[in-house]
Amino acid sequence: MGKGRLEAFSDGVLAIIITIMVLELKVPHGASLESLRPVGPVFVGYILSFVFVGIYWNNHHHLIHLVNKVDGRIMWANLHLLFWLSLLPVTTGWVGEHPHAAWPAALYGGILFAAALAYLILQTLIVRDRPALAQQLGRDWKGKLSPVLYVSGIALAFVEPLVADACYVAVAIIWVVPDRRLARAAHGIGE
Amino acid sequence: MGKGRLEAFSDGVLAIIITIMVLELKVPHGASLESLRPVGPVFVGYILSFVFVGIYWNNHHHLIHLVNKVDGRIMWANLHLLFWLSLLPVTTGWVGEHPHAAWPAALYGGILFAAALAYLILQTLIVRDRPALAQQLGRDWKGKLSPVLYVSGIALAFVEPLVADACYVAVAIIWVVPDRRLARAAHGIGE
Amino acid sequence: MGKGRLEAFSDGVLAIIITIMVLELKVPHGASLESLRPVGPVFVGYILSFVFVGIYWNNHHHLIHLVNKVDGRIMWANLHLLFWLSLLPVTTGWVGEHPHAAWPAALYGGILFAAALAYLILQTLIVRDRPALAQQLGRDWKGKLSPVLYVSGIALAFVEPLVADACYVAVAIIWVVPDRRLARAAHGIGE
Amino acid sequence: MGKGRLEAFSDGVLAIIITIMVLELKVPHGASLESLRPVGPVFVGYILSFVFVGIYWNNHHHLIHLVNKVDGRIMWANLHLLFWLSLLPVTTGWVGEHPHAAWPAALYGGILFAAALAYLILQTLIVRDRPALAQQLGRDWKGKLSPVLYVSGIALAFVEPLVADACYVAVAIIWVVPDRRLARAAHGIGE
Repeated sequence: MGKGRLEAFSDGVLAIIITIMVLELKVPHGASLESLRPVGPVFVGYILSFVFVGIYWNNHHHLIHLVNKVDGRIMWANLHLLFWLSLLPVTTGWVGEHPHAAWPAALYGGILFAAALAYLILQTLIVRDRPALAQQLGRDWKGKLSPVLYVSGIALAFVEPLVADACYVAVAIIWVVPDRRLARAAHGIGE
Repeated sequence: MGKGRLEAFSDGVLAIIITIMVLELKVPHGASLESLRPVGPVFVGYILSFVFVGIYWNNHHHLIHLVNKVDGRIMWANLHLLFWLSLLPVTTGWVGEHPHAAWPAALYGGILFAAALAYLILQTLIVRDRPALAQQLGRDWKGKLSPVLYVSGIALAFVEPLVADACYVAVAIIWVVPDRRLARAAHGIGE
Repeated sequence: MGKGRLEAFSDGVLAIIITIMVLELKVPHGASLESLRPVGPVFVGYILSFVFVGIYWNNHHHLIHLVNKVDGRIMWANLHLLFWLSLLPVTTGWVGEHPHAAWPAALYGGILFAAALAYLILQTLIVRDRPALAQQLGRDWKGKLSPVLYVSGIALAFVEPLVADACYVAVAIIWVVPDRRLARAAHGIGE
Repeated sequence: MGKGRLEAFSDGVLAIIITIMVLELKVPHGASLESLRPVGPVFVGYILSFVFVGIYWNNHHHLIHLVNKVDGRIMWANLHLLFWLSLLPVTTGWVGEHPHAAWPAALYGGILFAAALAYLILQTLIVRDRPALAQQLGRDWKGKLSPVLYVSGIALAFVEPLVADACYVAVAIIWVVPDRRLARAAHGIGE
């Protein structure tokens, strides 16, 4: 199988995931500004999940570029990643409807954690015969910090769900903001 | 990232947005002609939003053609545009269910305004190193009139929602009707 | 705009229309065979609409092949066709829930008729500068018989909806069955 | 019609099927871990159906590669396959809501069986003028065992639905696990 088709199929699935997520935003029952209020938390969750799918779409593209030959393992590792991402819409809806509950916040982090793990498996398979590349990717501090933040978020969801959300937002920020600016910021903190 | 993939992903998202919008048209409860009546305003809203997504799809294509190199900023500016457009279906549904209410009409204009702003940001990023092109696009009278009409619509929604709708329809018309005919019409008015 | 992108976008929209149509098939409430019964008419309607979208997808492909240069008119004529086809899912759902009612059957025919008209407009625009091609397409007996059947169906819906459905099924059959076999059959009848 | 477009359209439909399937997973009503319980069986069904669509996507790709010229028959045989696969989401939802009922389990197997048959028809059409290839595909033990398992599942659904599910899971396993390992396992059993 050519990697072009793997990419096209993944793009299709990611485009659909990012768009059907909006179906969790239900039309408000009334016509007043008040009636928008229950939609608020779902909307905030939608923004966060939208950003996460955007990050995965971007990183996925760079990762697939490294593929030499698509075999069955890579294909299934890729579908495995898409599987977890496909659970984001319903989980986002659950968090949005219960923004102050522990389990939805923990499950949201769990799905993100599983997706990160699936991404790592896919990456490991793709670079398995290329030690130089594997080493370079192994130095990736973002990939190491993210699971720590996810697990912290899951644990903290049972203390205060909003702190869990803050952990997930932090992951999104470190991936969206370009490296150089972050490095400079980290340098600034380090001084 | 190649611009081909940016285009394909955007096309995918726009194709899905334009199609799931139809899910706001619910199957009527009865079988009589009367039972179609509540669907009427949602249907009119669907036509307008369909036209807007069509306009964005068309303009987006021409804009992406100008891209030399896709960087992180352009990618996120593009996702930002898709984000606002993805909110059109639910907002269309809200307006359609409450065609005579102020807030739905104002929010609809707000989403369109935000999408126009996101488009402008994307355009500014794409032409930032090409002053001749930037100047040419800066003369674009449609791009200047549209936000004025959106803001007027948002304000007028609190006076009479149907006037707000008329403002949005006007924006759609000036983008759909080819320039030459509009120019001739403007000339006729000017004489 | 290249015709490749017009084709890709149309394919995307048609693929989504054909797939979201299945969302009108609701999960039955019970677990018995009986509980499947109300789904029956929607299922039959789904098959018919699936076949119609398949026919349009196939014909659309051949039509777009003839395009030399995509201009604004062709683009909007194409979106106009997609607009009517996008209304098939909800109309299919309405017919399926009220299989013995006049208005749903008539509206279903109306949407099919409007789509056929939109297709004719698109075709006329595409071949407008090519008289030989226009003449050849003008001899197309299927394109002439279909609107007659649609209008008959719409009128007959108010006598007996099932006869209207038979008209629409007839249109689907004349498009799906390859020409030669139909020609031979017509020859056989003529003898 | 080029096979590229057949592939792109099929990919689009499969990507949408695999993604809208997740819409059967409804947001739980409560916020407790308990409220997740009714989602459990639907979730398990979602995993199984996701794997089946993944298998079809993979096999479909290899099959279409063999196509020399896309004619009307192949196009409709392909749409016929997509039709049955498009029924997986709603059937998965039915099984998930009634995991211990006979009819949903039998219907799920019936849809899988119909899709397998549609695949066989498509394959037969594609290799109809190539006896060597047809012979090679004819030796495919997976393609022979699968319908036996489906029919067994449908029959056993009326004895114990979970045994039916086990039959379907077995089909998924023999397709996902690479041949060599399975062959070795079969060898080990045979010794």
